[in-house]
Amino acid sequence: MSDNSPFRAEDIERDVSGRVLALRDEDLGVFFRPRTLAVVGASDTPGRPNTAVYRRLRAWAARVGARVHPVNPGRDLVDGEPCHRSVADVPEPIDVAAVLVGDPAGVLDELAAAGARFAVVFASGFAELGDDGRAAQERMGRLALDGPRVLGPNTNLNAFEEFREDLDGPAIALISQSGHQGRPIFQAQELGVRVSHWAPTGNEADLEFADFLRHFADLPEVGAVAGYVEGFKDGRTLMLAADHAARRGVPVVVVKVGRTRDGASMAASHTGKLTGSDVVTSAVLGQFGVTRVDGLDELLDTSALLARAKPPVSGGVCVYAISGGTGAHMADLCSAAGLELPELSAGTQKALHEWIPGYLRVSNPVDNGGHPVGDWRGRRILETLVADPAVGVLICPITGAFPPMSDVLARDLAEIAERTDKPVCVVWGSPAGTEPAYRDVLLGSRRLAVFRTFGNCVRAVRAYLDFHEFQGRYRSPFPDAPRTPSPAAAEGRRLLAAGPASEHTAKELLRAYGIRTPREELVGSAAAAARAAAAIGFPVVLKGCGPDVAHKSDLGLVHLDLRSAAQVREAYRQVSAHAGVDAALVCEQVRGGVEAAVGLAHDELFGPTVMAGLGGVFVEVFQDVAFRVPPFDEAEAHRMLAGLRGFPLLDGARGRPRADVGALVDVIMRVQRMGLELDGVLSELDVNPLVVLPDGAVALDALAVVRP
Amino acid sequence: MSDNSPFRAEDIERDVSGRVLALRDEDLGVFFRPRTLAVVGASDTPGRPNTAVYRRLRAWAARVGARVHPVNPGRDLVDGEPCHRSVADVPEPIDVAAVLVGDPAGVLDELAAAGARFAVVFASGFAELGDDGRAAQERMGRLALDGPRVLGPNTNLNAFEEFREDLDGPAIALISQSGHQGRPIFQAQELGVRVSHWAPTGNEADLEFADFLRHFADLPEVGAVAGYVEGFKDGRTLMLAADHAARRGVPVVVVKVGRTRDGASMAASHTGKLTGSDVVTSAVLGQFGVTRVDGLDELLDTSALLARAKPPVSGGVCVYAISGGTGAHMADLCSAAGLELPELSAGTQKALHEWIPGYLRVSNPVDNGGHPVGDWRGRRILETLVADPAVGVLICPITGAFPPMSDVLARDLAEIAERTDKPVCVVWGSPAGTEPAYRDVLLGSRRLAVFRTFGNCVRAVRAYLDFHEFQGRYRSPFPDAPRTPSPAAAEGRRLLAAGPASEHTAKELLRAYGIRTPREELVGSAAAAARAAAAIGFPVVLKGCGPDVAHKSDLGLVHLDLRSAAQVREAYRQVSAHAGVDAALVCEQVRGGVEAAVGLAHDELFGPTVMAGLGGVFVEVFQDVAFRVPPFDEAEAHRMLAGLRGFPLLDGARGRPRADVGALVDVIMRVQRMGLELDGVLSELDVNPLVVLPDGAVALDALAVVRP
Repeated sequence: MSDNSPFRAEDIERDVSGRVLALRDEDLGVFFRPRTLAVVGASDTPGRPNTAVYRRLRAWAARVGARVHPVNPGRDLVDGEPCHRSVADVPEPIDVAAVLVGDPAGVLDELAAAGARFAVVFASGFAELGDDGRAAQERMGRLALDGPRVLGPNTNLNAFEEFREDLDGPAIALISQSGHQGRPIFQAQELGVRVSHWAPTGNEADLEFADFLRHFADLPEVGAVAGYVEGFKDGRTLMLAADHAARRGVPVVVVKVGRTRDGASMAASHTGKLTGSDVVTSAVLGQFGVTRVDGLDELLDTSALLARAKPPVSGGVCVYAISGGTGAHMADLCSAAGLELPELSAGTQKALHEWIPGYLRVSNPVDNGGHPVGDWRGRRILETLVADPAVGVLICPITGAFPPMSDVLARDLAEIAERTDKPVCVVWGSPAGTEPAYRDVLLGSRRLAVFRTFGNCVRAVRAYLDFHEFQGRYRSPFPDAPRTPSPAAAEGRRLLAAGPASEHTAKELLRAYGIRTPREELVGSAAAAARAAAAIGFPVVLKGCGPDVAHKSDLGLVHLDLRSAAQVREAYRQVSAHAGVDAALVCEQVRGGVEAAVGLAHDELFGPTVMAGLGGVFVEVFQDVAFRVPPFDEAEAHRMLAGLRGFPLLDGARGRPRADVGALVDVIMRVQRMGLELDGVLSELDVNPLVVLPDGAVALDALAVVRP
Repeated sequence: MSDNSPFRAEDIERDVSGRVLALRDEDLGVFFRPRTLAVVGASDTPGRPNTAVYRRLRAWAARVGARVHPVNPGRDLVDGEPCHRSVADVPEPIDVAAVLVGDPAGVLDELAAAGARFAVVFASGFAELGDDGRAAQERMGRLALDGPRVLGPNTNLNAFEEFREDLDGPAIALISQSGHQGRPIFQAQELGVRVSHWAPTGNEADLEFADFLRHFADLPEVGAVAGYVEGFKDGRTLMLAADHAARRGVPVVVVKVGRTRDGASMAASHTGKLTGSDVVTSAVLGQFGVTRVDGLDELLDTSALLARAKPPVSGGVCVYAISGGTGAHMADLCSAAGLELPELSAGTQKALHEWIPGYLRVSNPVDNGGHPVGDWRGRRILETLVADPAVGVLICPITGAFPPMSDVLARDLAEIAERTDKPVCVVWGSPAGTEPAYRDVLLGSRRLAVFRTFGNCVRAVRAYLDFHEFQGRYRSPFPDAPRTPSPAAAEGRRLLAAGPASEHTAKELLRAYGIRTPREELVGSAAAAARAAAAIGFPVVLKGCGPDVAHKSDLGLVHLDLRSAAQVREAYRQVSAHAGVDAALVCEQVRGGVEAAVGLAHDELFGPTVMAGLGGVFVEVFQDVAFRVPPFDEAEAHRMLAGLRGFPLLDGARGRPRADVGALVDVIMRVQRMGLELDGVLSELDVNPLVVLPDGAVALDALAVVRP
C-alpha cells in the first residue's frame, strides 16, 4: 500500500498491492470560482506582504463578483471595512479561505468547524525543512479528510491572478509547485496564448498535482495541461490522473526537476518532496503519454502547440523557407529528431515550379529563393503546400527580420493558417523580437504556432506527433490491473517467509510464477552432486552456495560444462573448500540464446518497478535498461524492449538467430504480477542472466531480496 | 593529396600525405575596408535587385569614405553619375569588385587584367546544380590564383552592411555560407552584442571559411568567431585555421548543417559542398576546440559569452535565484550538463545568512526567498557570492518578470558585473521580452551575459568552461606531423601493390608498422597445418582463407582451441571443403584481454581517418566508435578512448583486469601514420578484434582494402 495516499481504506477500489484504482472525486470548480472568500490574517499595514495579498484578492473578487471577508483577531477594520475576529464570525459559508498566518493549524480547525470548502495555506517551514515539518504537513493532510481541502502549505494565490478574458480557443491550464516557475507560462498571455487556470500546489499536504490534472482534463476550454513539478506526492495518483487525461485526449507537458542528484536534493529542500528515481518517473510519464521537457520555454512552446493544434490527419512535416540554407538547417534538425520529411507529390512540385525558379529545390524542404514571397506568388505557394496530402504539418522558419520578405511572409502565413486544419508552425528567429511582423502579425494570429528557435519548434512538433501516435494506441491498464492474488502469491509468501532467499529459493519463486528455470538440484556432498548430474543429464553446471555467498562467478564458484561424474565431484570439492559454501546447485546447462536480465526494484514514489535489459556489460557499463511501473500490458512490455539500444541483439542482429521476444515479454508480465502481489515482502528481484532462446526463455540465476 | 586544396605544388610545406601544413597568407583587411570599389552590373532601374545592391554599397562607401565606380556596358550614367563601360575603364586600382552579372567569367578575366584585389560574385547556378556547375566553379577558383581573390559565387555584400560603431569590447566576427542564416547574428547588435565582421562565403570557389577564420583570429577586436556552415571546402585548411585560432586563444562556435542525410543533401543542393561524414567533422571540431551547436540562437548566445568573458580563474558554477524552485531547476540542468556546483565556503554561507532567512538554502544553489532582492541586501549578497573563490561563474535565472523584485535584481546584477572579472550570466525568462529591466538594464550592460532560456545559458557556460579547459592543454599537432615516409611505408606499398590483400597480407602490413600479431603461418595442406601448429605451440586457431572469403566466423571457417595435430588436420579438412577456401592460417591462440577494434576510413573531406572502439556488438549495435583525423598526438588518442561509453571495460570495470590502454594508444598512433603514409593506396583498414591484454595488444584479425 502506498504510504502517501491520503485515502481512507474503505473509500475506494484497490489493486492487489493495496494501491488505489480511482482518484478522489472533488469539484475543484468551486475552488477556482468561489463566491465567498475569507482572508485569515488580512491586513492594511503599509508594506506588509499580507496587505498586498489581501488587496489583490479583493480586486480579483470585485472583478468576478465574489465576496471577501477579512479575518484578523487583532482588528476591527481593514481598509475601512469590518474585519471578523475569527473564522467563526464569518456570516456565510466560506468557499475558499486564504490562510496567511505563520502557524495555520488552529485556523484549519476553525475552518473545518465552519464548514469551509477550501483553504490556501501560505506558511512555509514544513516538509522542506525535514522530519518535524513533514510530520506537521502530514497532520495537515489528514485534517483535510474531514475539514477543508488544503492547497499548500508553501503556496500563494496565483489561482486568482488576472487572466485575460479576450483570448479564445483551447487554453493551457497550468499546475506549478513553485509560483515563480509558473510565471512565464502565465505571462505567455502577453503573447496571445490563452491560459485558463493556474494551480500553484506548493508542498501538496492535501491537494496535489493529480487532483488538478484530473480536474483540468475534464474542462472543455482546456486544450493542454502544463506542469512544473519538483516532486510528485504519490506515484499511483499521478498515474491515474495521467490515465484520465489520456482517456480524455488531453495532452500533458511537464518540466520535472530532479534529473540529477543535485536537482533532486534542491527540490526536496524547496517543497519537501520524495523524488523517487528520475528514470522511473520518466518511464511512467512515457507510459501515460505525458511529454517531458527540460525548460520552461519548451514547456510553453510545446503545450501551446499541443493545446491548439487539431490531431494530424496524415502526412509528415514540410519545411518551407525563403533561403536554401534555412531549409537545409531546419530539415537537418527535423531529421535528427526523427521527423519524416516526405517527398511532395509530383503535382505539387510542378505547381510550385510555376512560381519558384526551376533551379531551386521544391521537393521538401521547399526553397523559394526569396523573391516569390514578396508578391502574390507567396500565397499561392502556401496554398499549394497545405493542399498536398503528404503535408501534415507545415514549418516555416523565418531566420532573421528582413521586412521586404519577412513581413509579407508573416501575413501570408497568418492567412493560410485560418484556412487549414493542419498545424502551421513559424519560427521568428530575429533575436530582438520587437518587430511588428512578429508581435502584431504572427502573435496576433490565434491559429499559428509561433516559436523563437528552430530547436523548440522541432521538439514541439515531435511531441505533437508523438502524442497523437500515443492517443491512437493507448489503452488504460487499470481495468485489467489484478485485484486479487494469484495462486502463486501464497506460495511466494511462503518461500520468502523463511528469511534471506538463496538462489535456489529465488528460482523456486520464479517457478511458482511459471517462469522457466534449468532443471536443478541442491546437494550437500560430492556424491549427491554426481547423482544429481546423472539424473539431470550431462553436461551440467555446478555452483557453490551458502547463505552469504554472492557474486559466485567473480569468486570462481561457478563450474561450467561438466561432462562426467568425476568432473562434477571434483568441482564440488573445489567449491566446498571456499569459506561460506555449504552446498552446491547442480543445474542443467543451457546453451545458446541471448542473455537478458529482468528484475524488480522498489521505487520510493512508485513502489514495485519492473526493469529489463540485456545481460552483463550492457546493463552494467552501458546502463541500457528500461523501466515500467505496473500495471502495464503486453504491448507496453514490447515497447519497453524495443526501446533498448541493444534490442537488435534480441532481434537477430548480424545474422544471429532471432530470440523469442514473446517469451521475454511473458517473463516481464509474470515478474510484474509478482511485484504487485508480493509488494511489502519482496523488495528486489534480479533474474540475471535470463537466457532468451529462439524458443522460450530460461532464468539461469536469480537473486531475491526479502524486505527486512 | 587533398583534391580541394587550391594551392600550387611549390607553394607550401606539406605532410607525408601531400596535405598542406600552412594556410595561404592573404590580407583580408583590404577586403573588409576597401578604398575603391567597382560594381559590375550597376543599375538604377527601379525595382531591379542590382539597383538596391548598388545603392546600398554606395551608402556604405559614403559612410566609410571609400569610392565606388559603377560599371555597366549599356549605360553612361547610373543615378546621374558617370558609369564605366568596362572594368578596364575604371581609373584607379580596384580593391573590391561586386560582380552582379549572371555570367561572371568574362568579368573575372577583366578584373584580373586590371589587377583588382577581390571580387564578390553574386551569380548562383554553380556547384549547387551538379557536375557542370561544379566544373565552372572550379575554373573560377583556379582563376583566383592569378586574378582577384573571389568571394562566392552565390553570395552577396553582407560584408558591407551597417555595423554599429557605438559598441565596444570584444566582438563576434561572423562567417556564414548563407546570408539569411547569418542575419540573426548580425541583428544581435540590436541587443547590444558587438559584431565586427560578416563574411558570407557562399559556394567558396576560392575564399573559404578557413581564410576568414584565420584572418579574424588575428584581429584584436575579435573575441570569438561564429560560423554557419553547410559544408567545408577542404578538411585540412579547416584544421589549420582552427589550429591557428586555438593557438591565438580565439574561441570558435559553429552551426554545421548535415547531422543527417536529409540535411546534408539539402546543404549540397544549396551551396554544392562535399559534406563528408558528420561524425568525422564533429570529431575534428573537437580536436581543435571548436564548439558545435545546433541552433542559431545557441550560436549567438554561446559566441557572445565566449567573446566577452575573461578566462575562468578558478571555481565552479554558482546558481543564485529568488525562488527555491528556480534554483532547483537551474541546478538540475547544470548538473545534467556536467557542470560542477561547488559548496560555498563556510564564511560565505554565514555571511549570506545575515541577509537570507536561516531556513533557506545558501549552499549552492543559493535561494534568497525573494524579499532580500528588494532592498540593500540584494547587492550585498551578490558581492559576497562573487568574492567566494569557489565561485567561477555566477548564474542568476530570473524566471518571469515580477517588477518589485526582478527590476531591482537586474540593476544589481548589471552593477556587480562591472566589478568582477567572473562571468555573470542572467536568464530573463519572461516570454514577452519587452520589459525595460530586460531591454534597458540587462541588455544595456556590456558586461553581463544575458540569455532568454535556461538551456542556452547552461550550454554556453559549459562551452565556456570546456573551451578554456581545452586552451589549457592544447598543443598544435602540426609541428610534429610526419613530413617524410617511415621505412615501413615502402614495405607497406610493396605489400599492397599485389592487389586485394588477404588477412595474411594485412597482418604483414601491421607487422611492418610494428603492430603485434599472433605468430602464424599460411599453409596449403593438412600436414603443413599440423607442422605449423607444432612450431607455433598448442593450442592454435585455424582459419580457412581464400581470395574472396570474408566474414570467416559467420561461415564457420574459424576453429578455436585446437590442442593436437589430429584436431588441426581435421579442422583443415573441414575448412578446405568450403567453396573458395584454398589455404589456411594457423595462428597462436591468444587468451584473455578485452576485444577492441582500430581502423582507418577514407573521409570525403578529411581523407584518412582513424577509428577506435571496442570489438563486436559495441561497434556494430551500439555504434560506440570514436574518430580522429591525423595529425593528432598520443594525448588525443587517449581522449579518443576515454570518450567511448564502453571505456570502463578497458579500464577494469567490475573487477576485470585493467587492459593496457597505452598499448592500444600505440596501435592507434601507428595506424595513424599508416593512414597518412599510404593515403592513395590503402583505402580502408579494419583491425578487429585487436585484443588488449594487461600487457600489450595483439591484432587477431585484419582487413585491408586497397584503393582500386
